[in-house]
Amino acid sequence: MDEFEVIHRFSGDLPVQPPEVLVPIGDDCAVVRLGGTEWVAAADMLVSGYHFEDWAAPEDVGYKAVAVNVSDVAAMGGRPRFVLVSGGSPDPETALRCMNGVAEACQEFGVYPLGGDTTRADALTVDVSILGELPGGPMLRSGASPGDLLAVTGELGAAAAGLLLLQRGERSPERLIRKHLRPEPRVGLGIAAARLGVHVAIDISDGLASDVRHICEMSGVGCRVDLDLLPLAADTRQTAEAMEHNPEMLAATGGEDYELLLAAQGRTLKMLSEESGMPVTVVGEVTDRGVAFLRGGSVVEGLSGWDHFSDTAPEGTTNPSSNRRKE
Amino acid sequence: MDEFEVIHRFSGDLPVQPPEVLVPIGDDCAVVRLGGTEWVAAADMLVSGYHFEDWAAPEDVGYKAVAVNVSDVAAMGGRPRFVLVSGGSPDPETALRCMNGVAEACQEFGVYPLGGDTTRADALTVDVSILGELPGGPMLRSGASPGDLLAVTGELGAAAAGLLLLQRGERSPERLIRKHLRPEPRVGLGIAAARLGVHVAIDISDGLASDVRHICEMSGVGCRVDLDLLPLAADTRQTAEAMEHNPEMLAATGGEDYELLLAAQGRTLKMLSEESGMPVTVVGEVTDRGVAFLRGGSVVEGLSGWDHFSDTAPEGTTNPSSNRRKE
Repeated sequence: MDEFEVIHRFSGDLPVQPPEVLVPIGDDCAVVRLGGTEWVAAADMLVSGYHFEDWAAPEDVGYKAVAVNVSDVAAMGGRPRFVLVSGGSPDPETALRCMNGVAEACQEFGVYPLGGDTTRADALTVDVSILGELPGGPMLRSGASPGDLLAVTGELGAAAAGLLLLQRGERSPERLIRKHLRPEPRVGLGIAAARLGVHVAIDISDGLASDVRHICEMSGVGCRVDLDLLPLAADTRQTAEAMEHNPEMLAATGGEDYELLLAAQGRTLKMLSEESGMPVTVVGEVTDRGVAFLRGGSVVEGLSGWDHFSDTAPEGTTNPSSNRRKE
Repeated sequence: MDEFEVIHRFSGDLPVQPPEVLVPIGDDCAVVRLGGTEWVAAADMLVSGYHFEDWAAPEDVGYKAVAVNVSDVAAMGGRPRFVLVSGGSPDPETALRCMNGVAEACQEFGVYPLGGDTTRADALTVDVSILGELPGGPMLRSGASPGDLLAVTGELGAAAAGLLLLQRGERSPERLIRKHLRPEPRVGLGIAAARLGVHVAIDISDGLASDVRHICEMSGVGCRVDLDLLPLAADTRQTAEAMEHNPEMLAATGGEDYELLLAAQGRTLKMLSEESGMPVTVVGEVTDRGVAFLRGGSVVEGLSGWDHFSDTAPEGTTNPSSNRRKE
């Protein structure tokens, strides 16, 4: 049983869906009509020993817990507004440091904390729930059509390279460390994408190889992704190679980029890149069926991403996340 | 530094309060205007080893995590509508059992889960965020005036007696066990209270002795509570005495009753009891200042309740919660 099966089985026993719920569990956020306006809602939990180790300061953990939720709102084309934050901590000082990181992220992303809970726990644990307004959209995981292009914002692999460094006790290049500890969710770009008519988006949290599958499953389509097209920065490439990881494989499976993966027509993607001033790189296309990853023109087998309940690292990947699981 | 200080210090670094936020952090729920209607929002986290031990089945933990949040909404006079649920669990089977309890509570209380997160964690951890509609009210912790009567709904001490039994490995009387594991938040009564003009309420989660102080601090008043007036059921009294606890002290400090503590005029309280068909028992009155607990006409010193970060059990209490802290 994996994370998705838990969610799926749970979905079987839910109460009747109220009419205000426009999109239920299963996308980056749910969409719900509250008082005549549309809102998106999501939650994400970070746990010490699984999502981070001692290399993350409590401030970083609090900051990141907010940022990853903001990213879920961005993937719907929403504007983040309110959070509820619960923290479990071995001592009040760690709780306070973590909450200072939460407050810093709230300032950074313009979200206001409505409340939360602090309690003792052996492992530092932060759970954030978020509410965002939906000015346009929503962008969903479903609705991709054969012929749509697949594109990613910004760059891939930098957060995974940063994690490799952190796991070896290194703190430079600082840019890569920061990419892992302090993600930059694509809020403005997400809102612009929804306004320009992009209907399909997901944030890249589990890794491109995994997240593109979510779009394919929810849309009932296939895809072809050319790993040679992935946008990698020079320092990401250098760090990956220095640590004997293939840069493209790291970028495809590493996860935690918190960039957006979009499916749309080429013309729309071009307008989005021009308007946002951010790279929007075509990395493949939507097909009728089957998920294929290509490298040097050949199909790469067994590419997968992060699964929170899987016991084994997915075959054929170089996902540093797989080191994070305590057994 | 205690739990309240963590929250207080955190409050110092918040972003500017948006105009939609009518009541910020510090009450049972925040109140926020979303799309022209008023909503209440809160979150509560339960962690294995602190809030419960092996005597709680994962289903009970999931159920209770929803119920205690529903109780926060009830204390505002709100109607619970939506939850976000995050769970950390050592294995997917435990996660699924916990989520089944969540689903059962959602059915019971008519709340719909908008989403959440499941992840691995060494200790079973559940965090629930809740959104409720506010048909009237809100009832707040502030606004109590000298001369108001203090009243509690239902009965006190049953959950604490249930906890004493659970901690000794006993499973009967089943009613008391159930009072601890499956709280019954006072949603209908809370809505009725707000409609009848009760302005001051809190749910009794930390224990009457602690929660009455929250009202006094937030209202800038004092109180006098007569412990001889506390509504105790016969089985609660018998269990407390069999375990060498003073029943009234257990009821005053035990916590987790999830009854409501109200401050209002006697006439309003009488109408509320008649309309709801539930006991609403006057246990004291609001005074100008000072918090006094009386027993047999004499002042009882040092009564306090549950503090999630305190290292020592409060003096003079018989709070079984104090056994729950691992150090």
